Amino acid sequence: MKRAIILGGGMVGSAMARDLAADPGFQVTVADVRPPVLERLAAQVGVQTVHADLGDPQAVGRVVADYDLVLGALSSAIGFRTLRAVIEAGKSYCDISFMPEDATALSPLARERGVTAVVDCGVAPGVSNMLAGYGAGQLDHCERLTIYVGGLPVERRWPYEYKAGFSPHDVIEEYTRPSRLVEGGRVVVREALSEPELLDFPGLGTLEAFNTDGLRSLVRTLQAPEMVEKTLRYPGHIALMRALRETGFFSKEAIDVGGVRVRPLDVTAALLFPKWTFAPGEADLTVMRVVVEGRRQGTPTRLAWDLFDRYDPKTDTRSMSRVTAFPATIMARFVAEGRFAHPGVHPPEVPAREPGLMDAMLAELEKRGVHYQARVESGI
Amino acid sequence: MKRAIILGGGMVGSAMARDLAADPGFQVTVADVRPPVLERLAAQVGVQTVHADLGDPQAVGRVVADYDLVLGALSSAIGFRTLRAVIEAGKSYCDISFMPEDATALSPLARERGVTAVVDCGVAPGVSNMLAGYGAGQLDHCERLTIYVGGLPVERRWPYEYKAGFSPHDVIEEYTRPSRLVEGGRVVVREALSEPELLDFPGLGTLEAFNTDGLRSLVRTLQAPEMVEKTLRYPGHIALMRALRETGFFSKEAIDVGGVRVRPLDVTAALLFPKWTFAPGEADLTVMRVVVEGRRQGTPTRLAWDLFDRYDPKTDTRSMSRVTAFPATIMARFVAEGRFAHPGVHPPEVPAREPGLMDAMLAELEKRGVHYQARVESGI
Repeated sequence: MKRAIILGGGMVGSAMARDLAADPGFQVTVADVRPPVLERLAAQVGVQTVHADLGDPQAVGRVVADYDLVLGALSSAIGFRTLRAVIEAGKSYCDISFMPEDATALSPLARERGVTAVVDCGVAPGVSNMLAGYGAGQLDHCERLTIYVGGLPVERRWPYEYKAGFSPHDVIEEYTRPSRLVEGGRVVVREALSEPELLDFPGLGTLEAFNTDGLRSLVRTLQAPEMVEKTLRYPGHIALMRALRETGFFSKEAIDVGGVRVRPLDVTAALLFPKWTFAPGEADLTVMRVVVEGRRQGTPTRLAWDLFDRYDPKTDTRSMSRVTAFPATIMARFVAEGRFAHPGVHPPEVPAREPGLMDAMLAELEKRGVHYQARVESGI
Repeated sequence: MKRAIILGGGMVGSAMARDLAADPGFQVTVADVRPPVLERLAAQVGVQTVHADLGDPQAVGRVVADYDLVLGALSSAIGFRTLRAVIEAGKSYCDISFMPEDATALSPLARERGVTAVVDCGVAPGVSNMLAGYGAGQLDHCERLTIYVGGLPVERRWPYEYKAGFSPHDVIEEYTRPSRLVEGGRVVVREALSEPELLDFPGLGTLEAFNTDGLRSLVRTLQAPEMVEKTLRYPGHIALMRALRETGFFSKEAIDVGGVRVRPLDVTAALLFPKWTFAPGEADLTVMRVVVEGRRQGTPTRLAWDLFDRYDPKTDTRSMSRVTAFPATIMARFVAEGRFAHPGVHPPEVPAREPGLMDAMLAELEKRGVHYQARVESGI
């Protein structure tokens, strides 16, 4: 029996806990700073709990000391320092925190401590990276990678037709940070929310896609001359978000308003984020399409995977939590079993190239109802 | 020679000054609190100037004491108290301030002092009221009044395709205050920005019209079972404004943001209004359509007037300033000549019913290049 601890008992952490607790191979503990969160998890999922302020890296070090394996489901802002604390404690780690820093900068430290850590191990980044790395490995030469991904409410409500499956601050960050993509083998920078496309998804209808800065580690790890990542929303969202951004509502520069200094983004957050919050029991969905194109044995080939996942009413788990949590809990098992054991800090496209690992990951996701529909087109 | 004083030397006050100064029958003075405004008017228009804080009604009383006639071009917030101060000083008055209060509440005071005051004497309210009152007087029975009006920039710039020809605060007020209209002889209240229509204007293209609270005095003074006033913008403006309003960006209720209290509207004003300000020399246009329908000698009849006015590059006077200022300066002449002399406070539909006055008003506007195109349709 392995002892696992999950750092953070929020939406994704709860889904991780539920998944691991159902596995007789694990004894599961959740750490969080919020007592009500811990009480709910103890009652509903039957896990053990630890009350700790995980914003403090020393507390992280103390909390993880007695465990074999650590999973991270904390906010992006504290992702990097938590990663360092876990490595320093000598523990294997799978994390979904979407930290802005380059996690692989801690790879030398991880090798020194003999720690295997996989970061960005959710859906996108996460399975998107795995499929990109795996797909490119199936080709002689990968010419193009395209990732479309979006988390959406099922019920479309005017004016935004959007709710945030993760931190709304990270959503606004996606709408403001310049997007890096790869064209002709070079990294180019485009404005976020730019280059809109309309795409049809069977069973869902038309969505609009726009540039976001989602390639992350793939810019470095994948040798493809064309790479783009786009976010999906219901049509009309881009126009509103661009208008808000253009007007300055997303600005972090404080302005003077009636004698007080205030950051427009903070006002926008106070007004907008309550409207972007899912109601209890509200259904969401996740759409992702990963396309890898190139040549296989000389033949032009396109490998594509489509995800269309929905809210689980049985466990009241939102789709975005499911599709983010399960890749991490599955990868954690692979690490615990020694199926992927390479000291260092790795983005998920690295383990995805291990023989059989991608098939095993997709099979495990399938068992949890997360279905990636694969398509292969040749001679196109 | 009559001595006239204009209260306020802003955009509209300047256009009033230029118009009256060109008339040998008037000696013109402008009062304002801003020395640079007064210096510019003295240099460019050759008027006399008085420095005074017109936010103080006592200062208004002192300033107007030596004049035969007073014109008001102040902000809506101080319109009412300025009106009272001018009446108490015993001076005739023509005003365009768009005050929120019911100006006719001061009618008893005006009658007591023998003062004739015409308020709302711009374009809309203003000529719109005059044409409504005049047109209804041409019919046996007025069944419907429809007013469409908008001030717009010539150059359409994403995202708002709008700039404010008068106070942006008054524009937002138009987008938030419930709209009173008349249906089936009863006053009904609709949300502002509601019931959009697309209308084509020759030479300009398609505009969108939406309910605003612009009928004002006409709700009481005109006996028509159907009355509506709508504001015109380039298509798309409503959607953005409704989204901002829905999100709370127009709210006057202070919220807590990072420990300080701030009104969202003040933040919106700080961000938005600089973008809504015309650049020096930037061209604007004004569109208005007033339609009065009913029966004349038993025949269904529609009387309509169309205004399509543009920025005057010769005098660098914006269209909105022209079409607002001239009705007031022309009405001021009518009052000064005794052509309209009825002590009291009147909305402009009252003088418009005096024999010959409407024709004279339109002829005088025409001399200034402000052309109202009349149409009569019978037997419709």
